[in-house]
Amino acid sequence: MSYSAINVEDRFDRFSERWSPKIIARLNDTHIKLVRLLGDFVWHSHADTDEGFIVLEGAMSIAFRDGRVDLRAGEMFVVPTGVEHKPSAEAECKVMLIERAGTLNTGDAGGDLTAEDGVWV
Amino acid sequence: MSYSAINVEDRFDRFSERWSPKIIARLNDTHIKLVRLLGDFVWHSHADTDEGFIVLEGAMSIAFRDGRVDLRAGEMFVVPTGVEHKPSAEAECKVMLIERAGTLNTGDAGGDLTAEDGVWV
Repeated sequence: MSYSAINVEDRFDRFSERWSPKIIARLNDTHIKLVRLLGDFVWHSHADTDEGFIVLEGAMSIAFRDGRVDLRAGEMFVVPTGVEHKPSAEAECKVMLIERAGTLNTGDAGGDLTAEDGVWV
Repeated sequence: MSYSAINVEDRFDRFSERWSPKIIARLNDTHIKLVRLLGDFVWHSHADTDEGFIVLEGAMSIAFRDGRVDLRAGEMFVVPTGVEHKPSAEAECKVMLIERAGTLNTGDAGGDLTAEDGVWV
């Protein structure tokens, strides 16, 4: 039988929208997604999942109500369930997200930046 | 409050053993681990978790009873729960593993290559 690798860069080439996570793999109840970030996102939290950010290219920050973390390529951070955060990136940043399947990008916040969940590339 | 990024390369620098996954983050019931591979591992399967392999440096293969997949840096693959597999690498390969917390590296197989679970770096 033939098994195929998932090439991350090839999957990024399939979309250009920012702030719109695309699923590339499922692992138990967890989705592995790719997302392009540019500018400021909205403050939000996720009531039922931690959210892992792995920076693949570029740099980003995650603001918290009481601090922030700066991430560059090769660095990662896990935002705990329920913690308000606001991602941002001064230049386009490519990120791998790891979070429970069914997670909306804007969490509890909603609004114009809410992307359709469940889209694979 | 001060939040710290997890730098993947810095975490790899904390250990040199092969086939001995080290935890760098927890996300819901999932551990994110780093592992160095060299040579052939044992045939095994995991009865209660899918297992994600993300190759960060080098190249590796995963043999299945009916085929194989070759992975190089920037590529990933998810081995489904219960599927027998045998990882191997001709030169040292650095891999990020994503799997349910509590997973033993040798799964159902046991043996000398079984590493202690639950070790963080």
